[in-house]
Amino acid sequence: MKIIITESYEALGNLAASILLGKMTEDKRVNISITAGNTPQSTYTALIPRVKNNAAYQNVHYYNFDEIVELGEEKGMTEAALQKLFFQPANISSEQIHLLNLSNYQEQDQRIANAGGLDAMLIGIGEDGHFCANMPQSTEFNRHTHEVLIKPEYSWYEWAKADSGEKLPASFVTMGAASIMKVKQLILIANGSHKAGIIKRALSGPIDRNIPASILQLHPNLTVILDQEAAADL
Amino acid sequence: MKIIITESYEALGNLAASILLGKMTEDKRVNISITAGNTPQSTYTALIPRVKNNAAYQNVHYYNFDEIVELGEEKGMTEAALQKLFFQPANISSEQIHLLNLSNYQEQDQRIANAGGLDAMLIGIGEDGHFCANMPQSTEFNRHTHEVLIKPEYSWYEWAKADSGEKLPASFVTMGAASIMKVKQLILIANGSHKAGIIKRALSGPIDRNIPASILQLHPNLTVILDQEAAADL
Amino acid sequence: MKIIITESYEALGNLAASILLGKMTEDKRVNISITAGNTPQSTYTALIPRVKNNAAYQNVHYYNFDEIVELGEEKGMTEAALQKLFFQPANISSEQIHLLNLSNYQEQDQRIANAGGLDAMLIGIGEDGHFCANMPQSTEFNRHTHEVLIKPEYSWYEWAKADSGEKLPASFVTMGAASIMKVKQLILIANGSHKAGIIKRALSGPIDRNIPASILQLHPNLTVILDQEAAADL
Amino acid sequence: MKIIITESYEALGNLAASILLGKMTEDKRVNISITAGNTPQSTYTALIPRVKNNAAYQNVHYYNFDEIVELGEEKGMTEAALQKLFFQPANISSEQIHLLNLSNYQEQDQRIANAGGLDAMLIGIGEDGHFCANMPQSTEFNRHTHEVLIKPEYSWYEWAKADSGEKLPASFVTMGAASIMKVKQLILIANGSHKAGIIKRALSGPIDRNIPASILQLHPNLTVILDQEAAADL
Repeated sequence: MKIIITESYEALGNLAASILLGKMTEDKRVNISITAGNTPQSTYTALIPRVKNNAAYQNVHYYNFDEIVELGEEKGMTEAALQKLFFQPANISSEQIHLLNLSNYQEQDQRIANAGGLDAMLIGIGEDGHFCANMPQSTEFNRHTHEVLIKPEYSWYEWAKADSGEKLPASFVTMGAASIMKVKQLILIANGSHKAGIIKRALSGPIDRNIPASILQLHPNLTVILDQEAAADL
Repeated sequence: MKIIITESYEALGNLAASILLGKMTEDKRVNISITAGNTPQSTYTALIPRVKNNAAYQNVHYYNFDEIVELGEEKGMTEAALQKLFFQPANISSEQIHLLNLSNYQEQDQRIANAGGLDAMLIGIGEDGHFCANMPQSTEFNRHTHEVLIKPEYSWYEWAKADSGEKLPASFVTMGAASIMKVKQLILIANGSHKAGIIKRALSGPIDRNIPASILQLHPNLTVILDQEAAADL
Repeated sequence: MKIIITESYEALGNLAASILLGKMTEDKRVNISITAGNTPQSTYTALIPRVKNNAAYQNVHYYNFDEIVELGEEKGMTEAALQKLFFQPANISSEQIHLLNLSNYQEQDQRIANAGGLDAMLIGIGEDGHFCANMPQSTEFNRHTHEVLIKPEYSWYEWAKADSGEKLPASFVTMGAASIMKVKQLILIANGSHKAGIIKRALSGPIDRNIPASILQLHPNLTVILDQEAAADL
Repeated sequence: MKIIITESYEALGNLAASILLGKMTEDKRVNISITAGNTPQSTYTALIPRVKNNAAYQNVHYYNFDEIVELGEEKGMTEAALQKLFFQPANISSEQIHLLNLSNYQEQDQRIANAGGLDAMLIGIGEDGHFCANMPQSTEFNRHTHEVLIKPEYSWYEWAKADSGEKLPASFVTMGAASIMKVKQLILIANGSHKAGIIKRALSGPIDRNIPASILQLHPNLTVILDQEAAADL
């Protein structure tokens, strides 16, 4: 694990974008998995103008690592968010986008293996210690891509319920820790003082199923990029 | 994880030796970590005649991954065993042997990183689920190479005491799970019906500190080679 | 470049098979390109019993690197030879075989890139210095997979004519030096005293278009396996 | 080979710096070889503020790929230029700098191999087609790091004489094409209309000893970054 503390949220995004861009310049098919949410916004701000309409990066293929589809919706929340955050503003061709969803999740690991593996994955971390959709209590570390049932007994159920209301589905899908360990470089980004506590617990405490991101300490090539606030407790 | 079941203990050794030999033929410095004990004997039987006095393999460097030095002894038990099992019969030059011991363990991970990382590691598994010297109860999965205190409260204390008697030292050293995850190909070998139970628990059960080898399910490139007996419960 | 001299043609085959087998044991999709001809027979003799009907190697995909289709024939000579030498005796599933031919050669490099690249390629060398179907005079070193016109002005035309007679086609296809440089480990095998001269010229002389295999000196991970006779002039 | 055309010399530097920075963030020892001259100035301008005094990049080791020492001087011209361009302004520790010179060039390839190989090399191209110090006429493509005698018969002798005058030494050292092929990602940068002609000849013409950089077409992972002017003839 290598931790890099940047001077600002903008600098964090510049550095994460540089890592992704560096991979994209390689003379090979490049497979990258990226994240939705608030944390990566400065990364996409830095990345979009350098990738948009640039034929030099047609060798890059994009993957999402989790998906939830609300009841009555056709499109998943992750897909919709990635479209808005990156794919549309960067004008990424649909041929370069490989979506994970509830109907194809059982082939996700093989599909990635058949394309030569993931060169990089950009992820965030939740204040509850989740990564991808590996949530506290519902996570077994030895899983590849799998379906997670949404059960009232989980600590995060109320949060999910508040988020989706009547549209809360019965399950979602996520790549698991066993899938993530195979990513060649894992880039974990976090900013803000509200992330300081979980960053400390996940990166320097014991490996614990209730802090799923703690397992990332075992990734063979993990780069953690933080702003000053998120790094405050380290 | 990829599991290969061989028809015999000899075939197991032939295959493990082939993997190691394949690495050795690469046109680069090759770093390999190997194991002592009974399990690798058929591997060394296959490997020794192909490596012995062969100048083509001077690019290969050998590392041990754990060490215990009994009281009053100068040489560690692992070193002594590897000398007898492989280094001496294969006539490996001392310049190619990089010993881990209690005085240099704190530099082991950096030393390996500075040599380009370990290309392969050959390990066994104990009936109690230990790998390297990551023992039940005393193992935290987030450790790199570290010292382990030998405490009477551990389940394996009596076994260690029976083994070393008056010469039982206060501690030993081992590479931890965080170190092992960085090995480019991990080769786990096991033979015999007495290993069938632990193979099943470690490779298909939950990840559990009391079965340290269960964490190996997360290794990004793990090859498990078993004979029929050791695979009987899978 | 790393040169390994073995004691016999059988030992040569055992070692080449070990390298290929080692790749196959990795927990990933493994892409291997193999050769027809006389030289690899001892390699296939060693490899077939270890691969045949072995479900553990369903992750391995096979590619040929050149093809010539005689007039009036449906099947290429390389395909036919590989079927006889390896695919049929090893009972390799057609889903694992990816044939290069005159109708798809323009996609060969992209197809391989999209599968994560070739992990290994086993090749021979002709007494005239050719490798794959990169022949003297007709070879430009900066080519990827391409079509080669069979012209009477080439030194090897008479040889081709004698071989195919009335069935000599107008062209064949081959991966070029630029394609071969991307193979992660290139394994060149040669046996017999009739190969001793070209081995010396190709591996220790200047790089020369009239000895196409001389360019292999630049491959970043080339393993040359010779018997004593083929190595006699080194 | 992958060619990326940037909108400006500044953008070229930003992209080259991003690639290097991306490598530096990996959780491993990272070995990078960098170039002196005018071309990389915008790269260093982008890189220096991000690397300077940043403890996160202490895992990065720097290598030069050629050296010439003028008569009467102690320090080589490449070393002096790199110190001024990058090492001093970025405050790189001497422990991270591994200088190639006339007294140690015979160990350069082994030294790099023992450190795990070069992860990246940043190079320019001369209007005469040279790369590193592989000059027209004096270059054999099958060389590793070697000494080059400065002979009056070479086309570039007068240029060298004009440059160094009375202080022209008898030789210099350079990594050769066989060394460069082993670099994991090769980054070739060129800007300005005076480079347009050689870029075209080197990257799209035949491989030719009189245009040494033409051999780079064979590098397995070459990224070429150009501004509009240097790309004008492609």
